[in-house]
Amino acid sequence: MPRFIRKVSRKAGLPPGALVHIGKERTEKVLVSIMDFDHDNFQETNLDTIDDIFSREQHFPLRWINITGVHQVDFIEKIGKHFNIHPLSLEDIVNTGQRSKVEDYDHYLYLVSRMLYFDESKGEFHSEQISIVLGEGFLISFQEIEGDVFNGVRERIRKGRGRIRHSGCDYLAYSLLDAIVDNYFVVLGIFGDKIEWLDEELLENPSPEISRMIHEMKREMIYLRKQVWPLREVLGNLSKAGSVLVKESTVIYLRDVYDHTIQVMDTIESYRDILSGMMDNYLLVVSTKMNEVMKLLTIIATIFIPITFVVGLYGMNFHYMPELEWRWGYFAVLAFMLCMVVFMLICFKRKNWL
Amino acid sequence: MPRFIRKVSRKAGLPPGALVHIGKERTEKVLVSIMDFDHDNFQETNLDTIDDIFSREQHFPLRWINITGVHQVDFIEKIGKHFNIHPLSLEDIVNTGQRSKVEDYDHYLYLVSRMLYFDESKGEFHSEQISIVLGEGFLISFQEIEGDVFNGVRERIRKGRGRIRHSGCDYLAYSLLDAIVDNYFVVLGIFGDKIEWLDEELLENPSPEISRMIHEMKREMIYLRKQVWPLREVLGNLSKAGSVLVKESTVIYLRDVYDHTIQVMDTIESYRDILSGMMDNYLLVVSTKMNEVMKLLTIIATIFIPITFVVGLYGMNFHYMPELEWRWGYFAVLAFMLCMVVFMLICFKRKNWL
Amino acid sequence: MPRFIRKVSRKAGLPPGALVHIGKERTEKVLVSIMDFDHDNFQETNLDTIDDIFSREQHFPLRWINITGVHQVDFIEKIGKHFNIHPLSLEDIVNTGQRSKVEDYDHYLYLVSRMLYFDESKGEFHSEQISIVLGEGFLISFQEIEGDVFNGVRERIRKGRGRIRHSGCDYLAYSLLDAIVDNYFVVLGIFGDKIEWLDEELLENPSPEISRMIHEMKREMIYLRKQVWPLREVLGNLSKAGSVLVKESTVIYLRDVYDHTIQVMDTIESYRDILSGMMDNYLLVVSTKMNEVMKLLTIIATIFIPITFVVGLYGMNFHYMPELEWRWGYFAVLAFMLCMVVFMLICFKRKNWL
Amino acid sequence: MPRFIRKVSRKAGLPPGALVHIGKERTEKVLVSIMDFDHDNFQETNLDTIDDIFSREQHFPLRWINITGVHQVDFIEKIGKHFNIHPLSLEDIVNTGQRSKVEDYDHYLYLVSRMLYFDESKGEFHSEQISIVLGEGFLISFQEIEGDVFNGVRERIRKGRGRIRHSGCDYLAYSLLDAIVDNYFVVLGIFGDKIEWLDEELLENPSPEISRMIHEMKREMIYLRKQVWPLREVLGNLSKAGSVLVKESTVIYLRDVYDHTIQVMDTIESYRDILSGMMDNYLLVVSTKMNEVMKLLTIIATIFIPITFVVGLYGMNFHYMPELEWRWGYFAVLAFMLCMVVFMLICFKRKNWL
Amino acid sequence: MPRFIRKVSRKAGLPPGALVHIGKERTEKVLVSIMDFDHDNFQETNLDTIDDIFSREQHFPLRWINITGVHQVDFIEKIGKHFNIHPLSLEDIVNTGQRSKVEDYDHYLYLVSRMLYFDESKGEFHSEQISIVLGEGFLISFQEIEGDVFNGVRERIRKGRGRIRHSGCDYLAYSLLDAIVDNYFVVLGIFGDKIEWLDEELLENPSPEISRMIHEMKREMIYLRKQVWPLREVLGNLSKAGSVLVKESTVIYLRDVYDHTIQVMDTIESYRDILSGMMDNYLLVVSTKMNEVMKLLTIIATIFIPITFVVGLYGMNFHYMPELEWRWGYFAVLAFMLCMVVFMLICFKRKNWL
Repeated sequence: MPRFIRKVSRKAGLPPGALVHIGKERTEKVLVSIMDFDHDNFQETNLDTIDDIFSREQHFPLRWINITGVHQVDFIEKIGKHFNIHPLSLEDIVNTGQRSKVEDYDHYLYLVSRMLYFDESKGEFHSEQISIVLGEGFLISFQEIEGDVFNGVRERIRKGRGRIRHSGCDYLAYSLLDAIVDNYFVVLGIFGDKIEWLDEELLENPSPEISRMIHEMKREMIYLRKQVWPLREVLGNLSKAGSVLVKESTVIYLRDVYDHTIQVMDTIESYRDILSGMMDNYLLVVSTKMNEVMKLLTIIATIFIPITFVVGLYGMNFHYMPELEWRWGYFAVLAFMLCMVVFMLICFKRKNWL
Repeated sequence: MPRFIRKVSRKAGLPPGALVHIGKERTEKVLVSIMDFDHDNFQETNLDTIDDIFSREQHFPLRWINITGVHQVDFIEKIGKHFNIHPLSLEDIVNTGQRSKVEDYDHYLYLVSRMLYFDESKGEFHSEQISIVLGEGFLISFQEIEGDVFNGVRERIRKGRGRIRHSGCDYLAYSLLDAIVDNYFVVLGIFGDKIEWLDEELLENPSPEISRMIHEMKREMIYLRKQVWPLREVLGNLSKAGSVLVKESTVIYLRDVYDHTIQVMDTIESYRDILSGMMDNYLLVVSTKMNEVMKLLTIIATIFIPITFVVGLYGMNFHYMPELEWRWGYFAVLAFMLCMVVFMLICFKRKNWL
Repeated sequence: MPRFIRKVSRKAGLPPGALVHIGKERTEKVLVSIMDFDHDNFQETNLDTIDDIFSREQHFPLRWINITGVHQVDFIEKIGKHFNIHPLSLEDIVNTGQRSKVEDYDHYLYLVSRMLYFDESKGEFHSEQISIVLGEGFLISFQEIEGDVFNGVRERIRKGRGRIRHSGCDYLAYSLLDAIVDNYFVVLGIFGDKIEWLDEELLENPSPEISRMIHEMKREMIYLRKQVWPLREVLGNLSKAGSVLVKESTVIYLRDVYDHTIQVMDTIESYRDILSGMMDNYLLVVSTKMNEVMKLLTIIATIFIPITFVVGLYGMNFHYMPELEWRWGYFAVLAFMLCMVVFMLICFKRKNWL
Repeated sequence: MPRFIRKVSRKAGLPPGALVHIGKERTEKVLVSIMDFDHDNFQETNLDTIDDIFSREQHFPLRWINITGVHQVDFIEKIGKHFNIHPLSLEDIVNTGQRSKVEDYDHYLYLVSRMLYFDESKGEFHSEQISIVLGEGFLISFQEIEGDVFNGVRERIRKGRGRIRHSGCDYLAYSLLDAIVDNYFVVLGIFGDKIEWLDEELLENPSPEISRMIHEMKREMIYLRKQVWPLREVLGNLSKAGSVLVKESTVIYLRDVYDHTIQVMDTIESYRDILSGMMDNYLLVVSTKMNEVMKLLTIIATIFIPITFVVGLYGMNFHYMPELEWRWGYFAVLAFMLCMVVFMLICFKRKNWL
Repeated sequence: MPRFIRKVSRKAGLPPGALVHIGKERTEKVLVSIMDFDHDNFQETNLDTIDDIFSREQHFPLRWINITGVHQVDFIEKIGKHFNIHPLSLEDIVNTGQRSKVEDYDHYLYLVSRMLYFDESKGEFHSEQISIVLGEGFLISFQEIEGDVFNGVRERIRKGRGRIRHSGCDYLAYSLLDAIVDNYFVVLGIFGDKIEWLDEELLENPSPEISRMIHEMKREMIYLRKQVWPLREVLGNLSKAGSVLVKESTVIYLRDVYDHTIQVMDTIESYRDILSGMMDNYLLVVSTKMNEVMKLLTIIATIFIPITFVVGLYGMNFHYMPELEWRWGYFAVLAFMLCMVVFMLICFKRKNWL
């Protein structure tokens, strides 16, 4: 639940562009890694002091700075001044909880997207804000927490695999977005397995617990949709009316990751439909069971109520009740009641209740 | 409920542009404050008589007139004449209950937006109409009641913080809109806390009272959506096809507040979905409980009805009932009934009812 | 219900443009009033014979002919010839039951809109077709029945209030549309009061009667939506790509009435949502009550069924039942049954059923 | 149901443009009628042999060939060659079950639309495909079965009524479409009467039979919508970006029939909403009745279960039961039970159950 | 279920364009067939070794290479190099599970579409990815498994039927798409028959099994929609803004297959609506039956509970009960009870319960 509510109270009233970190409180050390590379060369550095970032000479034409942790507002501010980043972009970097978007500030592109994590213990999705500043010859990425999702990209730069060292920073930005979207599939796969398991469980053992879980998974879908939906638009904008920072040859790749996002949305929609169907199915199973219960009650009651009346009748203490004195009265009554029961059973059979 | 119904009966039949105050009756004194400022200077005045407004010389190039209270129609009319405001704009200013909109009258822009308040005692949202007239070198804002939401902006002008004293009236208009939208988040936060609380309550103690509260909160969402939705369009129009009164450098800020409005809408939609889900959950919990009740009734009835028949049987007063005279008849019947009960319990166990 | 079904059987098979009056049969006399006016002068005439209309000289540059009653087809045809109106327009004038629309026939604009009436006795909306032919220097309006909704406009012409005598026939057309839309608010206000009353009633006294009324009001909303929705489009078209007959200065007024129509639609949508919510609430209240009933039945049955069995047990007439002869047997059984009842009450308490 | 399923199995695997009749098997003789006409003259011929069509000289500038029956594929093929019709058009003519569409093949326009019939005995709609080939100076219409819907148009040509003899083939095409759409209103009128009747029946006598009928009518609406919806688009395209074969003066008439189609769609949507509302109402009525039944059961059971226990109590055969020997014991018990009943009735009254 | 979940875990982290086969594991031999043809000539070859493909001289201007099996990644890579296919296209070819799409790489068009199979044993749809690379003078089609759906096209090439040998590769591509879409109709026909059967079954014998089947068919519709929907867009794009590889004369055919896809979507939507309606109907039937059951229970209970009380009353053992000693007491009680029963039956009759 708290994931749905964006807290801005600390911010309301401050001038726009004022840097206030909004999001989960964190105290971890901010990590900075720099990768310089071109066609043939490559150099990787992890910085000890974050101020080193400004003194480091750039050896090769392309530089990727990855910053993990956006809670040290003063550091973000320094970076903003150094790279001439607009205060509104800086505000969005530290103010985690943004929708995915892309903004063109002529000399750089500012991209926000959301990385997803599935917390299996709680059965909840969590998301982290990834901000990317794509400039001429450099790219700065901001993560909230340490993750291993960009490791594939790093490895490709290190080993010089694929086109990554032969292309510009726009291709690097694409690679990061591709890694993020590929990760969506991984996360959705885990979720899909859970749905599959739930679907089987539903057939075998439909308990209120199952319905509660379906309910929660539907809520997760609301959350997921909210996270992924805007990214589609971002990638569509990027690949259609690109800025000068995005080369024509990269656009074809962006269209590819756009297609993947569409597939993610498709899958989310399918999951929603499936979960709704499962809920309907659960309710059906429960009401079917309920109907059986009621039918049984009715059959038992309908058979026994009349014959109980008959035995009550001959339990009366009237002084003059002729039947009581008959020799075969008792057996006649037994036989009569048997007939009644048989008759009723035939009725029920005909009404298709048995 | 009354918030949903716009009363115009007093107005129907009058010529368009006729000034009649529509809204809650008010008798408070109209408050006027004037702020003149430029890059270096700043002067603030609160007026005693509202007519002073026309005689006051404007010392610095930018003037912000804030008027609290729109129920004194003649005063609004005088302002309209003084600043050459179109009668239709004046009509909209006093006719509170407008949708948010922006209208371009060449020499000024007329903006309407809605300020939200959450009345915690009733659990209801209320809204106030904020009208902004943005002209060349001046800005007039009209509030219905006194509020503290613009205090942050005032403070920034006083202290010269941020860009506000260095920019024109268009930036001031943006600042006011930003304050209004930031306030939406505050209000939504309060509402979100209530939903969270309700969600926990629902798990622990699902009462009809809870369902009534969910129902009311869904209605609040209808109200909220109706208030906020048009603002999105207003800001979209402003930031896309701006008038000459909105400078290019301000457009980037308007886009930012537009993004915030989208987030507000997103949050409202999420809340609606969550509340719908909670309602479904409540119904599920209630029907699950109901089913348990019915099952218990069935089990009790199904076990006792047959054996009650048996005891009734031997309560009959027939003169000739051989079993009655048997030495162990009573105990045989007891044993027989015990067998029946055990048999039924086994049946229920197998049908998974116990 | 009949309001939803448009009867065209009388017309099917006839050539297009054939004039057949479709609508409620009427026999009232057709009323014609003519108003000639300009900036300074004004002359009003009510005609005795409808043919006089063609012989009357037009004294002042602007003429408004208002015709009440469209069931005299031959008269409408004469007017059509006199003013050179296209047969399709004439067909639409007499064929009441059109959607609101605007059609540009170069030398005149043909406008259809719907006037709403709320028949309180039946709780139903009814609508009347208002056709407007706007030409160069003249405007003809066609009403089905006499109404007082245009009286405000007439009064303004008579007294020369507002801009109406200073503007052209396009402004007059706007004034009529504005009067129609203002009337929507009045009608919606009445309906809103009924919803409010129903909402209170629902809380205090939820009867099937209430549910039937909500159901009917939802159907009224379907009708209302169908009537008002197309008008929005008409006004949008008029104010965007206007014909030469609509002056630029009038467009700003049309935009204003367009905004009002949007508000009407908003209100209708809100009412629909509220009525749906009320229906859900009603169902909830009913099912909550039902559950209480079932719970009571279960508690009563579950407590008494077992002890009734016990008393039946000792009503058996076996010759040898040792308990019967015990001195304190009766009191022991009473005590035993009391224990059972107390035990069960504790169980129910724990399951939170009491 | 079968109406919903389009069978193409006979066709799958054949080259496109291969002529295979798809639709209901028919063996009727194909009927051909030719009408030649201009402003002053008119000649009508019904052909005995279908091959005569090619040898007939065209006397007057406009020719309308109406062909009833499209199951003689070789004949359709000959016509196609004679008039130079594209194989895809021919395929669509014989392959009944097309969506309405319009295709521009430069030298002719190919139009498909659906004629509706309401089979009252089954309460089902059926539709027939009407294909129109509109060329320069000729128009060919293809019907599946004989119908009287075009009789009005024929009569107008014969008698020279309206504009039809003074206009070109495009106006004739419009007249046919207008006749088809007018027929929709007739069919909808019949259906509307049935809904009205059902609505009254629902109030007086809500039986499962009624619910089944509502269900079936909702399915009919699905079918109807599917048939009519595409026609709207066809007429929109025709009247907007017309081909050279459609004169400007005809466009205004096409717009008129477009408006009628919108009204048909409106009516269908209203019917759907009304039928949904009726279904909800039915369910409500049924559940209200059910609740009454349950309440009665509860009241009866709750009153009698306790007093039945009391009489059972004093039916016990204990040797020592002091009350039994009291002089007024019997009457005391009767009085006690009466008090219990009265007490319970008061409780129920208070809970508002009686 | 597993069909809904796309597994990409094997791929996440690899550079884009890396060829990894994703889909069902297969070990079948890859089959390659080549067809060279022009207006008069035709040559067909099935290759033994897949490398022969590169050494084969192209005898006639048009070549169609059909490859069955995309799991041999190295082979696909070789083809990619030989025909200069972009790595992203190759990735999509082997990465089965793509949405239908079309991509224009200037010197070739890359098309993906989905072939449908209906597995009657499981009642599930399955789909296979068909990729088409359309170049200048050649067309390569990739299937996952062997199928007979293209046999009709092959036969037409062999026998020179239709336009296929007289047109270019774009017409061949159209023929393949047409065969795929025609196959949709066949598959939908099978499904439609199943719905029809289910609909009859529902009327005669509504069991929970039926409801489960409807539920599953609804899920199949979700799957189907997801497969077919994007194809509509693909064909729309192809026929609107075609590349130089698609001749004008082919566009008219693409529009035709586009129309067929719309019909497929229409049918799917109708099926969804019908299945939803059937589900509603099932629930209605079940609840109607339930209500009957409850009514019977109530009637039985309401009749017998009071008279059972009466007989219990006279089963009491009070020493002094005057009625017991009356001569006709027993018969009086019998008569009294009969009256009660008759009275109740009349009540029920009046409430319309019998």
